Amino acid sequence: MTDFAATRNLFHLPDGVIYLDGNSLGPLPRDAPARVARTTVAEWGDMLITGWNKAGWMAQPAALGDRIGRLIGAEAGHVTLGDTLSIKVFQALAAALNLVPDRRVVLSDNGNFPTDLYMAEGLMRLRDSGHSLRVVDPEAVAGAITDEVAVVMLTEVDYRTGRKHDMAAITARAHAAGAVVIWDLAHSAGALPVDLSGTGADFAVGCTYKYLNGGPGAPAFIYVAPRHADSLQPALAGWLGHAAPFDFDLAYRPGARVERMRVGTPPVLQMAALEAAMDIWDTVDMQAVRTASVALCERFIADVEAACPMLALASPRDAAARGSQVSFRFADGYAVMQALIARGVIGDFRAPDIMRFGFTPLFIGEDDVRAAAAILAEVMRDRLWDRPEHHKRAAVT
Amino acid sequence: MTDFAATRNLFHLPDGVIYLDGNSLGPLPRDAPARVARTTVAEWGDMLITGWNKAGWMAQPAALGDRIGRLIGAEAGHVTLGDTLSIKVFQALAAALNLVPDRRVVLSDNGNFPTDLYMAEGLMRLRDSGHSLRVVDPEAVAGAITDEVAVVMLTEVDYRTGRKHDMAAITARAHAAGAVVIWDLAHSAGALPVDLSGTGADFAVGCTYKYLNGGPGAPAFIYVAPRHADSLQPALAGWLGHAAPFDFDLAYRPGARVERMRVGTPPVLQMAALEAAMDIWDTVDMQAVRTASVALCERFIADVEAACPMLALASPRDAAARGSQVSFRFADGYAVMQALIARGVIGDFRAPDIMRFGFTPLFIGEDDVRAAAAILAEVMRDRLWDRPEHHKRAAVT
Repeated sequence: MTDFAATRNLFHLPDGVIYLDGNSLGPLPRDAPARVARTTVAEWGDMLITGWNKAGWMAQPAALGDRIGRLIGAEAGHVTLGDTLSIKVFQALAAALNLVPDRRVVLSDNGNFPTDLYMAEGLMRLRDSGHSLRVVDPEAVAGAITDEVAVVMLTEVDYRTGRKHDMAAITARAHAAGAVVIWDLAHSAGALPVDLSGTGADFAVGCTYKYLNGGPGAPAFIYVAPRHADSLQPALAGWLGHAAPFDFDLAYRPGARVERMRVGTPPVLQMAALEAAMDIWDTVDMQAVRTASVALCERFIADVEAACPMLALASPRDAAARGSQVSFRFADGYAVMQALIARGVIGDFRAPDIMRFGFTPLFIGEDDVRAAAAILAEVMRDRLWDRPEHHKRAAVT
Repeated sequence: MTDFAATRNLFHLPDGVIYLDGNSLGPLPRDAPARVARTTVAEWGDMLITGWNKAGWMAQPAALGDRIGRLIGAEAGHVTLGDTLSIKVFQALAAALNLVPDRRVVLSDNGNFPTDLYMAEGLMRLRDSGHSLRVVDPEAVAGAITDEVAVVMLTEVDYRTGRKHDMAAITARAHAAGAVVIWDLAHSAGALPVDLSGTGADFAVGCTYKYLNGGPGAPAFIYVAPRHADSLQPALAGWLGHAAPFDFDLAYRPGARVERMRVGTPPVLQMAALEAAMDIWDTVDMQAVRTASVALCERFIADVEAACPMLALASPRDAAARGSQVSFRFADGYAVMQALIARGVIGDFRAPDIMRFGFTPLFIGEDDVRAAAAILAEVMRDRLWDRPEHHKRAAVT
């Protein structure tokens, strides 16, 4: 059983801060600075170019991929790391379209993160092969899986509301209809148990800087189901996805399995930080995370709803249909969030009116939740948000 | 005038090592560990999500892009950072093909880095629009620029031999023939003066972990000429290339100029290391680098040829036709390089028979060159390379 009182001490959390935004950028693992310093000085500095072999930099995308794979139910050897989530979405979709060559529709929903839709449309413009993106309401996805659909491309947990798709049911329905499925796990990996192998997902992608605590700009990951892994022709045919990168052949031959989804040089310093995070995650049971996360979310909803009748719950009320975040709608939500941040409660805001609060049992306990709800209640009761300084928009929200 | 005795002290170089592989992975700037630690602890750790605004993470790709831009003759505001070089090649080529919609040939040469060719072929498979890649000998490029050619895509300096294309002449010839040009500056940026604006290049891409000393996995850069920058439709339409990423629109609208070539979240820790490197580069005059680099290369060629008649110069003898590296061919070059590395002279090997030595005046002086040549002479004279341990292949060469 995971001891969350112990994991809390493995993170650096500034005094006076209740951090409810680990779903946007996870906090710093206490061991990360030393791990990054070691890679910078003792590896890059002292080993120089020989670090690729001696420090094992080249093998890290696969090793870290397997450690993440355990958290998302992937078979060993079928997850690799690199690039950003947008790039991994592009790779997965390009490969998926080739698996269903006789159909022309990609189905997604308007709860998907916009970049997934942008990347899909960019890919379709590039192919110019009559494909189209069909974007429906999240609730309408299952019913929209017709025999026109080549690929169902969804983010499991909605970044705004925390609404959670039923991955097993949608995957089964897509397969029954002859489509393949891509799951974006940005708000799932490290947030709740995922069973890629058990649900039969074809592809999955995700990022490591949210719940996985890999740090700002940490690399993305991609999973390709074993049944597809050795037959895909990568659209982004980079040299580190080549079967023998250091032969420097002029012709591309894809590497084994998901290794062919590697593109260029991996981000060694970012991977060092992620390694420190994975040292923590290796000890964590995802079912225990889920149980604790649900309790924290329920507590927050109850406290906020009792004290703040002007806030409307934007997340599903049913915990089983929710990820590890709780969102409330309020017209002046941006200013409320600024007032909260000024008082040490850090969540974030998503246009037009959503305040998001992420709950990560690894470093958030019930006392934090009660304290955050009390501060939110005070901000709302005394209209503390209604001051000019809280309405000033920053570049990044 | 740049004082290379002073710049040398700004790098960490292990005792007993003569590092002639800065063309593969540049050495660690002495200030980089502190800069990376600050970003890790005082920014990520203490600012958490607010680091995107407070620490300016979001603006760094443009700011660093401009600092690199000065070294390669780019107009301010027309270089940005992110992803890997392979991805940037893909973006540039996808955009370039759209500029010449009535032609179907991409011209490159067999001295290009293989990943550039792989990415081009991957893009063409994806488009399936009748494009083909024509790969000729480097010397035949100028003559092969016919009115069939849409895009000329070249690496200015050959990664194996250091042979250097005439960027101005080829760009002019391509434009006269109605083609656009993409220059890969992997072995140029920080190695020699580049004048993108003056030569009228359409696109340029490059990496920052070689001569620019950004560290293992440092991000790539891309330049788009001002005349194209506001009309391109990005193939990789990522959210940070959107005109207003934090509006979370479902529809993509490209950002201003080269900003639209951004894709996903920038690698903040890698950028911190690169910032420390750029603090050095900001003080450097590229003409002075070139003058010193040529002198070092000439010295090395003279010393090695005098002492090692069995080694064949693989680089152009004319300094004007060469980048900042010198290569020699030898059938057992791999073993020779291992013997050199065992003796503290670090260069590298490129199949089938090329030993590469990079010369970077920022941290290599004439004494180093003489010492390295003397050690190579000893290895060759006494056949020190002909031992079993020097023939054992590592994963990364």
